[in-house]
Amino acid sequence: MKWQPDRDPAAFALAAARGVGQVFFQDNAATGALFLLGIAWSSPLMAAGAIVGAVLGTATARLLKFDDAETTAGIYGFNATLVGIASLFFFRPGAASLGLLVVGCVAATLLTRARLPFPTYTAPFIVTTWAIFFLGTAMGAERVVHPGPADVAPWVGAVQGVSQVMFQADVATAALFLAGLAVGNWRHAAWVLAGSVVGAMVGGWHATGASRLLDPESLVVRPLFENIALGLYGYNATLAAVALSLWRRSSIPPLLGMLLAVLLTDLVPLLGLPALTAPFVLATWLVLALGKLDETFLADRGAKVA
Amino acid sequence: MKWQPDRDPAAFALAAARGVGQVFFQDNAATGALFLLGIAWSSPLMAAGAIVGAVLGTATARLLKFDDAETTAGIYGFNATLVGIASLFFFRPGAASLGLLVVGCVAATLLTRARLPFPTYTAPFIVTTWAIFFLGTAMGAERVVHPGPADVAPWVGAVQGVSQVMFQADVATAALFLAGLAVGNWRHAAWVLAGSVVGAMVGGWHATGASRLLDPESLVVRPLFENIALGLYGYNATLAAVALSLWRRSSIPPLLGMLLAVLLTDLVPLLGLPALTAPFVLATWLVLALGKLDETFLADRGAKVA
Amino acid sequence: MKWQPDRDPAAFALAAARGVGQVFFQDNAATGALFLLGIAWSSPLMAAGAIVGAVLGTATARLLKFDDAETTAGIYGFNATLVGIASLFFFRPGAASLGLLVVGCVAATLLTRARLPFPTYTAPFIVTTWAIFFLGTAMGAERVVHPGPADVAPWVGAVQGVSQVMFQADVATAALFLAGLAVGNWRHAAWVLAGSVVGAMVGGWHATGASRLLDPESLVVRPLFENIALGLYGYNATLAAVALSLWRRSSIPPLLGMLLAVLLTDLVPLLGLPALTAPFVLATWLVLALGKLDETFLADRGAKVA
Repeated sequence: MKWQPDRDPAAFALAAARGVGQVFFQDNAATGALFLLGIAWSSPLMAAGAIVGAVLGTATARLLKFDDAETTAGIYGFNATLVGIASLFFFRPGAASLGLLVVGCVAATLLTRARLPFPTYTAPFIVTTWAIFFLGTAMGAERVVHPGPADVAPWVGAVQGVSQVMFQADVATAALFLAGLAVGNWRHAAWVLAGSVVGAMVGGWHATGASRLLDPESLVVRPLFENIALGLYGYNATLAAVALSLWRRSSIPPLLGMLLAVLLTDLVPLLGLPALTAPFVLATWLVLALGKLDETFLADRGAKVA
Repeated sequence: MKWQPDRDPAAFALAAARGVGQVFFQDNAATGALFLLGIAWSSPLMAAGAIVGAVLGTATARLLKFDDAETTAGIYGFNATLVGIASLFFFRPGAASLGLLVVGCVAATLLTRARLPFPTYTAPFIVTTWAIFFLGTAMGAERVVHPGPADVAPWVGAVQGVSQVMFQADVATAALFLAGLAVGNWRHAAWVLAGSVVGAMVGGWHATGASRLLDPESLVVRPLFENIALGLYGYNATLAAVALSLWRRSSIPPLLGMLLAVLLTDLVPLLGLPALTAPFVLATWLVLALGKLDETFLADRGAKVA
Repeated sequence: MKWQPDRDPAAFALAAARGVGQVFFQDNAATGALFLLGIAWSSPLMAAGAIVGAVLGTATARLLKFDDAETTAGIYGFNATLVGIASLFFFRPGAASLGLLVVGCVAATLLTRARLPFPTYTAPFIVTTWAIFFLGTAMGAERVVHPGPADVAPWVGAVQGVSQVMFQADVATAALFLAGLAVGNWRHAAWVLAGSVVGAMVGGWHATGASRLLDPESLVVRPLFENIALGLYGYNATLAAVALSLWRRSSIPPLLGMLLAVLLTDLVPLLGLPALTAPFVLATWLVLALGKLDETFLADRGAKVA
């Protein structure tokens, strides 16, 4: 059965929506739609970027005849979705930033085809967005200035880690993301929330020792408690939690991944790069590598992921 | 068989002593007696508070005809025991503080009846004592000023975490507590000591970064090394260790609980509340929740606690 | 079959080389030879100390007729090897330091015979070298001053933890050590590298909070990032990783041991003693003790070590 994009725009839209859902590993178009709603609540502009990214990624995969089942499941949409959001998180709309957005979404989709011996997760998004970040700055694109957090209750940062996965610091956005996850699998929603809470807890503990630190996304030095209140210590832990809960039938890998993601949230910005989801990808790769070292790791020989 | 308190004071005394033992999860009157001896060594006044609490809790349960087996096992004694000690830890004896002590011991016993889908542990004590803390302050009760630690060897704080469970900073008290535990179950004594040592170790590591921090019990800002020397980084970890060693046949839950308890020891005081054993309760609940997320958690399907 | 040292110098040399290999738990003379090559690349003098130590340890064991199979496997060589290196790390060659080196190598070998209910690992080296450190200072031996690190890339410290096991801060030395390990068992090489990387990662995270800290080996206060760049947060974690990967068929014990080794790397120097490999030994003993507490620890009843 040959797929006909011009004949079936509804199927194309569903694949693109699944691409948004795959940011949190969900092969579910309703989940993706709730994610878009959540972004739009906080930032209609970045929601538009997400849609453009998901469409460009899915269209690129269709045109280049990537595996049809994978494309339909959104596998070629989530990196481009994140590139679309990130471009408009860092830069105001303009010729340079929008040009980089379009080229970046296509490039990230092509990079998703790179076959490594382990899952690439959001690595294509990270590499592409680092390039956009430096090229955009070099091309004089205007940076967006994001405000620090209002004086918020401690639980706010623990929840906003969920929305920060797509660059939003907003409790309602996080709630819509969790609702989208729960539509498909309540355990995934629980792991995502657990990751964000653990991230804020460990970050908060660290903050009692370290009063000021680089914001891992915008590379501004600010009080560490403010970074935590923005949810910046949760968004990597939350992705590591759900990715590794999918890997083996044990709670240890996600717990370990969450902890490593929090450590790396402090360390990646020291390289002078926006952390993006690199702490998540690196933490998860480290746990997968540990699994290779010891096939009895966590008393579960049945790996779900190769 | 109807229980007759007036006819059997010895049985009543044994139930009250078991209530003291249940602070460390021990259904053992000799254990409770050694605990009381340990408190009395360090503070006869607080030992009196413990006895009043254990008696009030057990009597309340008898009068209201709570489950007889539970009452005999001390289940309705340990929260009131801790309320009795805590009231005299925070305030000098007086009309306000003694009135709050008596009302608080009864209230904590009633709260122990709250049926949650998970164990309440010392949560009734915590909620009641927070209320006593604010009401006592509002009523002008005179606060007790506790001295900082003498210049002590590092191992002192690692041991005093055991005695801090009942508000004492004293090595001999800790030794009597451990002896009381070993009378019933040497593994529980080992876990209790392990928790206290891990708490002091992790706290000490943190202290090399953070030089000053809130004392989690008296909310005074003091050098973090002093808080550790007082055992304040161990008393929550030690309870989490023994509670979770009772839960499943694996060392991972107590290890995880200890670590979370230490983190929360820094975080709960930031809310402006004395931490009491809230870090223990929250850490243990978090680990139980993780167990719900993944029924194969730690490769042990046989949960001992529902 | 009686062993004849005078008749078989080749067998003696192989046993001594295995003694060097046993620093990383390798019963392999080629491994030991690559380790010596690695030390010599960075410091010919300390390589000479290592050879003298390995020879003295093995000769002492032969002369005192210690178990022949153990001596041939290098069991009585590795503590003396480390004493030989450490003496020349702390002090310039001279009558006092060389005398202490010789006496210390013999003493460490005798201490290796101490039969504790658990493995002694490098404890004989640690105790002996602490004695040498204080005696040498008292006898006026001249201390060696080691430079801080050049301005290095972050991964350098993550690798140099491997070479720091034998007191070297050198990437090529670390590579030769890893090659020596891989000759015998690539999994051990992987665990050793993992330990060093985790040590640098956790240390780096801590460093974002604590800017200055004692160098755990030379007891100089210096910026914590410099200590990490020297690999000083990795050499204990790396030994704990490989020791505990040998213990049970699970990744949890080495992970736990690595983490504890990093914490203790901060804490042991607070006692005013060079840390040497005490953080490794203490961390590993703690994990073994946890295994005793709970025989189902990590879902593996088949302990490889008694």
